[in-house]
Amino acid sequence: MDELHGYYLEDLSVGMTDVYSKTVSEADIVMFAGISGDTNPVHLCQLFAEGTVFKERIAHGMLSASFISTVLGTRLPGPGCIYLSQNLRFRAPVKAGDTVVARVTVKAIDQEKKRVTLETVCSVGDTVVIEGEAIAMVSRRVAQAQAAE
Amino acid sequence: MDELHGYYLEDLSVGMTDVYSKTVSEADIVMFAGISGDTNPVHLCQLFAEGTVFKERIAHGMLSASFISTVLGTRLPGPGCIYLSQNLRFRAPVKAGDTVVARVTVKAIDQEKKRVTLETVCSVGDTVVIEGEAIAMVSRRVAQAQAAE
Amino acid sequence: MDELHGYYLEDLSVGMTDVYSKTVSEADIVMFAGISGDTNPVHLCQLFAEGTVFKERIAHGMLSASFISTVLGTRLPGPGCIYLSQNLRFRAPVKAGDTVVARVTVKAIDQEKKRVTLETVCSVGDTVVIEGEAIAMVSRRVAQAQAAE
Amino acid sequence: MDELHGYYLEDLSVGMTDVYSKTVSEADIVMFAGISGDTNPVHLCQLFAEGTVFKERIAHGMLSASFISTVLGTRLPGPGCIYLSQNLRFRAPVKAGDTVVARVTVKAIDQEKKRVTLETVCSVGDTVVIEGEAIAMVSRRVAQAQAAE
Repeated sequence: MDELHGYYLEDLSVGMTDVYSKTVSEADIVMFAGISGDTNPVHLCQLFAEGTVFKERIAHGMLSASFISTVLGTRLPGPGCIYLSQNLRFRAPVKAGDTVVARVTVKAIDQEKKRVTLETVCSVGDTVVIEGEAIAMVSRRVAQAQAAE
Repeated sequence: MDELHGYYLEDLSVGMTDVYSKTVSEADIVMFAGISGDTNPVHLCQLFAEGTVFKERIAHGMLSASFISTVLGTRLPGPGCIYLSQNLRFRAPVKAGDTVVARVTVKAIDQEKKRVTLETVCSVGDTVVIEGEAIAMVSRRVAQAQAAE
Repeated sequence: MDELHGYYLEDLSVGMTDVYSKTVSEADIVMFAGISGDTNPVHLCQLFAEGTVFKERIAHGMLSASFISTVLGTRLPGPGCIYLSQNLRFRAPVKAGDTVVARVTVKAIDQEKKRVTLETVCSVGDTVVIEGEAIAMVSRRVAQAQAAE
Repeated sequence: MDELHGYYLEDLSVGMTDVYSKTVSEADIVMFAGISGDTNPVHLCQLFAEGTVFKERIAHGMLSASFISTVLGTRLPGPGCIYLSQNLRFRAPVKAGDTVVARVTVKAIDQEKKRVTLETVCSVGDTVVIEGEAIAMVSRRVAQAQAAE
């Protein structure tokens, strides 16, 4: 199964970056409501949304945040890393039809603790919609090899 | 549409608490993978998961985190609040079949800035799986009434 | 498009019957929660459901009821009929994994008003889970032909 | 889990009312077709729908009816009530983009049988799309307390 494994600690360096990009559809919002249970009418009811500052239905913030998890879990550092923490600041709304680009960049590597700090930013065009920081634990290839002995 | 609105700032006090509780199913994990794009094999591939510290497939951390959004968006403070930020510390894994209880408790209210700080904890039985803190902006009922004049 | 049309009034007689049968999965329940907004914890939370008379999670009654609509809309009378009314008596719960058979039987035909009364029963094995009656308006083939002149 | 419970019989009085409101999207219609199996072309095929009195695709009547279940299951009476019956009269079609408001109002309470009769109306703007009546069984808080002893 090692072919599925992402980067090991030795592979990572500060400045490495990767993205996931997804167009958010009405179907995503409806299914996210079912999975999460978050049926807040700002996501599902046009009449309610028109009475808010957003003026129209918006996607769940956590739906866009999930794209950060996608980068961490599938690209950088990728499968095998352990997600320890995530800070999220919701800066602007995402609407159905918007394409969200989630970008993750390595900011610091703690070799001792095997912890990697990553900057995590989601944007729609030039607008930052989520800013934040993730910490992931990434194992060493060497330790992996020793375990296999 | 005001019948759908949640608490206003005047209604909130420190110590108020509410929950959302959801049994995480394989269907949730598969659909969350589809919506988010997070196809990390630790969530979807039993063979890969067996080679990790978790020993079996686990749910996406962001799936459990979404239940926090459900409490904020539907119960406390409820519809109408604006989600400003969320910190998440992933403490323990969640597996298919686990029932996650997301509890949100008001910790502080900044009347000036209309910002409410909420403690957000997800548990499976006695095990805390996510700890964190949310900040939401909640409008005043008075301002609402004035806007309607 | 007439190839897609179901029975016309002239084609129907009392006693005609047809079925739709569907195994209800957890995925159906989660998606139905998202579409309907019905996140009642008796459907989604094992801990809550254990405290009810049902002892475990049950499917939404309206999810099983929708299979009646499936018979009417796709088989008997089929496409082209207009659904006027439906009475539903929920007799027993449906659980994930259960196969629901929805059976629809013509009980009466009002040639004047072009209204067809149908008995609608959903069962899981020998247990009736929903009983009820539907009324549908079905157009005449003749009128159809005249309209085409 | 009692925090998740809705109203008890003692809490209800004639005239109490609550709503759920949802904008019906194409995604809802497609997913409802998949879950229910109701692939009637009046919902899914523009060419077929143009040949009907509706002139365009319409949502499943049972999709709008499910919003009534949402009020009963999540708001009034809320979690813990048992849905016994529902009558539905489909009065007018719902189209993608329409916002359906499902309103439920307590009409009668049978203290002996613990049965609550509720008026259930779905509207799009000023147009009533579904009229009907539901009966739900609601447990007493007292009985609940005794059971806990």
